[in-house]
Amino acid sequence: MAKAPVLTPQAEDFPRWYQDVLNKAELADNGPVRGTMVIRPYGYAVWERMQAAVDARIKAAGAENAYFPLFIPESYLRREAEHVEGFSPELAVVTHAGGKELEEPVVVRPTSETVIGEFMGKWVQSYRDLPLLLNQWANVVRWELRPRTFLRSTEFLWQEGHTAHATETDAAAYARRILFDVYENFMREVLAIPVVVGRKTPSERFAGATNTMTCEAMMVDGKALQMGTSHELGQNFARAFDITYLDDQGSQQVAWTTSWGVSTRMMGGLIMAHGDDRGLRVPPAVAPVEVVVLAVRDDADVVDRCRALAEELRGAGRRVRLDDRTELSMGRRATEWELKGVPVRLELGPRDLAEDRAVLARRIEGDKQPVPLAGVAGAVDEALTAAQTSLLAQATTLRDQRIAAVSSLDEAVEAAGVGWATLPWDLVGEAGESTLAQSAVTVRCLRREDGSLPDSEDEAGLVAYVGRSY
Amino acid sequence: MAKAPVLTPQAEDFPRWYQDVLNKAELADNGPVRGTMVIRPYGYAVWERMQAAVDARIKAAGAENAYFPLFIPESYLRREAEHVEGFSPELAVVTHAGGKELEEPVVVRPTSETVIGEFMGKWVQSYRDLPLLLNQWANVVRWELRPRTFLRSTEFLWQEGHTAHATETDAAAYARRILFDVYENFMREVLAIPVVVGRKTPSERFAGATNTMTCEAMMVDGKALQMGTSHELGQNFARAFDITYLDDQGSQQVAWTTSWGVSTRMMGGLIMAHGDDRGLRVPPAVAPVEVVVLAVRDDADVVDRCRALAEELRGAGRRVRLDDRTELSMGRRATEWELKGVPVRLELGPRDLAEDRAVLARRIEGDKQPVPLAGVAGAVDEALTAAQTSLLAQATTLRDQRIAAVSSLDEAVEAAGVGWATLPWDLVGEAGESTLAQSAVTVRCLRREDGSLPDSEDEAGLVAYVGRSY
Repeated sequence: MAKAPVLTPQAEDFPRWYQDVLNKAELADNGPVRGTMVIRPYGYAVWERMQAAVDARIKAAGAENAYFPLFIPESYLRREAEHVEGFSPELAVVTHAGGKELEEPVVVRPTSETVIGEFMGKWVQSYRDLPLLLNQWANVVRWELRPRTFLRSTEFLWQEGHTAHATETDAAAYARRILFDVYENFMREVLAIPVVVGRKTPSERFAGATNTMTCEAMMVDGKALQMGTSHELGQNFARAFDITYLDDQGSQQVAWTTSWGVSTRMMGGLIMAHGDDRGLRVPPAVAPVEVVVLAVRDDADVVDRCRALAEELRGAGRRVRLDDRTELSMGRRATEWELKGVPVRLELGPRDLAEDRAVLARRIEGDKQPVPLAGVAGAVDEALTAAQTSLLAQATTLRDQRIAAVSSLDEAVEAAGVGWATLPWDLVGEAGESTLAQSAVTVRCLRREDGSLPDSEDEAGLVAYVGRSY
Repeated sequence: MAKAPVLTPQAEDFPRWYQDVLNKAELADNGPVRGTMVIRPYGYAVWERMQAAVDARIKAAGAENAYFPLFIPESYLRREAEHVEGFSPELAVVTHAGGKELEEPVVVRPTSETVIGEFMGKWVQSYRDLPLLLNQWANVVRWELRPRTFLRSTEFLWQEGHTAHATETDAAAYARRILFDVYENFMREVLAIPVVVGRKTPSERFAGATNTMTCEAMMVDGKALQMGTSHELGQNFARAFDITYLDDQGSQQVAWTTSWGVSTRMMGGLIMAHGDDRGLRVPPAVAPVEVVVLAVRDDADVVDRCRALAEELRGAGRRVRLDDRTELSMGRRATEWELKGVPVRLELGPRDLAEDRAVLARRIEGDKQPVPLAGVAGAVDEALTAAQTSLLAQATTLRDQRIAAVSSLDEAVEAAGVGWATLPWDLVGEAGESTLAQSAVTVRCLRREDGSLPDSEDEAGLVAYVGRSY
């Protein structure tokens, strides 16, 4: 009799497969308040590595971390009209505190744009104070009607960058630096996800932005996930929050601002860009466990050798788990580590020990081969490097296979059934966006054929990437 | 005419000195909602280093990080009677979200004890699941009547550890491991603060705890600051949240839990334990800038040499700032770096350059000496090591000078005017605590003469440390 699969197969029910992976790989649970989530240790360990890699890139781009309050006076949100309109249906409001009703209710931040704008206004006085490059790691709350763990949760974790510049050119360049050098680079090199980078159409812009740029990832079911955005805010926020400065001629100027963010949503992207019917596949760069050493049998020599092997690999800088739960079957344990997406598994039994070898199983490539115990650390390093490369290559192939160049809206809708379509933006336009929306298809982003990103007002030669999305 | 001091002198008005340091060293600002704070980049960079050092120690103690929701159903807090009593006047309550009134209001976490208890109850099934060692880095909210930045803010950042164990002995040992190996070690070795470690009296225990242990630090004004606590919760929370397990005999048992935390309050401790009339003094281990290189004059050779020097020190792994703002006076710039507590300052002018030397100023020791440019990296390393050691030595001397052994409550109150008193716990007791409280003096902690910590029920030979506190 065939074993029941651990997970719902992707082809049968993709959303259910996603939910199964979340639960069975012990990534996350639903929180008690609707739409909130509990990030379990294994999931959080992945997030911590993502966070560290993004943080290092943000610091390399010159921004400094700071922390602003969770609670924002309601009045702040009203200052930038478009901004409040974008957020008001999603706000959580504290009306009582310290045992009494508050005189002015406070909002739990849906983003810190306004409160950071307020302080930038205080801190920026002269052109010498610019650029002011701030970043914050924090939780934010947006009340979601259709919450989904990691993808659209009422509370999520993110970083939000906010910068002020003397000129529009500086602001535009910095928003692009974050987009390409921080986000795209991180997503490709660390998450092994070959995102398509482009700008949003005017109707898909962030509330208050003059230009929104995005990194769009292809999920294995052909849908798109917006993984991160970088916004040029023009002088809208600077005017609303009085971010002005004296230039070197002594005259008062209004600053130009940007904002940009990535969130725990990327966890959903990681799961859905790489996962398969056996579970997660975690890129070594963010894997909490890079290699698991399995003792095949309850044999003192085997267990001792496995322990020594784990120590040796740890000494070589690897993140290692020893699995000596020999009371459980090998099959069950192997399935569990596959489910958790650990890139490399080393199995060692009495016969292997007799022959001075271990069996090295590669999760990404799905193969197994014996390796001599003497050279095991080198073999593991090689396998990990290969895993990172293979994941990116597989995801790139998948993405390219699922993108079809089309020349009409009808064809675009059809292509969106299995992936994305590209077509000239001239053929879409605002009217086309409405037509596509009737089939739940959206323009994910616009860019030039050669991958370059024109200024926000320049529409010449733009290609639209359209598809369904999370 | 004498220059006006940058800061209010400590002896004149200590609370005002504290406020001056916060503002002028650009550590923090008040947030727009009463009692909240903005942690500015320089302050946050110190906090990030504290966090990293604590996190590494927590991981070494075997606990794993996870993340639980900000919002907690009101009903959760009612499950553990003492716990809700301890927190209810401090709660912030969300009554409206998503544009409507909520059916059940949700509380913004004042601590995650209850929600983590709920999930521990789900995750713990068998003795094999124990110990379960969790930690969370998060923001929490307690509505404060008399807020003070870092010391007592409405929102603060902290870590909260929550663990479940099979036996009382295991739980007690783990609570002590965190107290000594994580907290005390971190405070002494990293923050250079020689905390006194003891247990709280029953009346000072955390709501719901059977034993609360604490790290108490001496501030330069002689008051105490509670820097971190570790609690044994007995089976109170485990019963309320059904954290039960099947033991190896197959019978149902109730687990024993602990919790423990440190917060941004430690930032206040760092400021008040080491600061002087010239400003902050930051231990090198958490200093965002370990060494600042100052170009004394606007001379191309000098500025170039300073830049090269900064690069050389960065290459040697130091955190370096180059100050080439030669349009400002040296005095003003030196004062600014002293205010920010940067441990080492290297000054280089044309005459120094001619003599192949720089002047090395040490913030902690308050001295200056020329060092040959050839050996500057070594001299800086040495100065940083010395700074860390000196700070701890100075703080230890201060602490010991300010602790007086006394033999009556009256003497204790008198001693608390300038520092702490020690006296036998037998002479205090609950009645004595009430008497001391009339003079705003509290028992900070109890421990044995030899520094050891008896079990919570054992009162023999206990010495009480009493004083005023923040």
